[in-house]
Amino acid sequence: MRYKMVVEYDGTPFVGWQRQQNGVSVQSVLEKALKIICRETVEVFGSGRTDAGVHALGQVAHFDTSVTLDPFRLRESLNALVRPFPVSVHSVEAVEDSFHARFSARQRVYLYRLSDTPFPPVLNQNRVWWYKHKLDETAMDHVAQLLIGKHDFSSFRASECQAKSPVKTLDEIHVYRQGEEVHMIVKARSFLHHQVRNMIGTLVHVGTHRIDQHDFQKILDAKDRRMAKETAPACGLYFVRVVY
Amino acid sequence: MRYKMVVEYDGTPFVGWQRQQNGVSVQSVLEKALKIICRETVEVFGSGRTDAGVHALGQVAHFDTSVTLDPFRLRESLNALVRPFPVSVHSVEAVEDSFHARFSARQRVYLYRLSDTPFPPVLNQNRVWWYKHKLDETAMDHVAQLLIGKHDFSSFRASECQAKSPVKTLDEIHVYRQGEEVHMIVKARSFLHHQVRNMIGTLVHVGTHRIDQHDFQKILDAKDRRMAKETAPACGLYFVRVVY
Repeated sequence: MRYKMVVEYDGTPFVGWQRQQNGVSVQSVLEKALKIICRETVEVFGSGRTDAGVHALGQVAHFDTSVTLDPFRLRESLNALVRPFPVSVHSVEAVEDSFHARFSARQRVYLYRLSDTPFPPVLNQNRVWWYKHKLDETAMDHVAQLLIGKHDFSSFRASECQAKSPVKTLDEIHVYRQGEEVHMIVKARSFLHHQVRNMIGTLVHVGTHRIDQHDFQKILDAKDRRMAKETAPACGLYFVRVVY
Repeated sequence: MRYKMVVEYDGTPFVGWQRQQNGVSVQSVLEKALKIICRETVEVFGSGRTDAGVHALGQVAHFDTSVTLDPFRLRESLNALVRPFPVSVHSVEAVEDSFHARFSARQRVYLYRLSDTPFPPVLNQNRVWWYKHKLDETAMDHVAQLLIGKHDFSSFRASECQAKSPVKTLDEIHVYRQGEEVHMIVKARSFLHHQVRNMIGTLVHVGTHRIDQHDFQKILDAKDRRMAKETAPACGLYFVRVVY
């Protein structure tokens, strides 16, 4: 039987989604809990990796097991067994064998949160990037629209990115103010490694009027990571949901 | 010179606002930082105490010092010196000697956040009360209106409350849904010890239809703490702002 689950996590204490030698990953926490429940080794496949410190509101994963399980009770057991790690299974459902968390995904949605207050956001520590400088979210949203569509995103690609091609299609991007925060929502079938964090890391320079639309277009066209700005911190990034 | 400040804090690591022997308080963290800045002992007066674990979005405090300070630089110094404690000074301003953070207050506003999802809210751990059971926020809001006005709130008063009288006047109360959370906003000149947490601790029984409007009225009229329900956890409570 194949099961699909939707998972929330606080990325702060993890080395990331993916199992690694050097620390605790979300995947390993879920696999350990499932091994106890199913009494067999279970491999969990995520819809995408998230880096150390990156959060998820709705990561999707699937796994196969020879055991037949009640989805409701499975969720309860998982949430009890993953403790004290900050992982929460929102839902579990039995799915067709043709469903694959990664390969069946049609769209992934990410949120990036920044705080542009002059004082530190202590209740949202590790939940937002404290940028300190006032941001012009209207300018950021306007310039961000240059990223829509099919582009070679090499300027926003991490050097260690393993994707075959730097060409991706961005479906939607919105930058808007939410109280004392600036949020960016991005939607695409898939992203390059660090693409979202590199895009927002350059867009904040638009938000403080250090670069304009013309400069931003030049950075995109250069297809050269050295032309873009710094990678934004992991703590502001949220994997929101997957569309299948 | 007298200065007024607006302070945000994450209540989780503190014994509360008030200086105490058995742990770190928000007041002591601010007083230690001010002693370094002013080079003299400074006493900080808060507009009200908050218990261990209770948060503040806009606690107000004042202090006197013989030193003349630039409010903007004072805020920057304070925010640097309170680290690594989760305290953030939003603003500092020079005020008249007649201003008193506690005695000049005309209204205090509190927010209580609950999550009624069947899965734990891990990204909001220590930020909401995870109640688990679905709440009928419309019923809660309706019944909560019985609390408006001048009442003897003995049924919602902590045994260790030091107020002279159990009679208080509640100006406003609203219960409403915010996504996967239920929020309660309350406004009054002042509150009894644990009053907000005891009110919401009983209102959740209305939200799960275990008690109705008639029962709730009886609890209020009884003027007896044993008639009301459990005290809601500190982690869901936020001191939002003070009106002067």
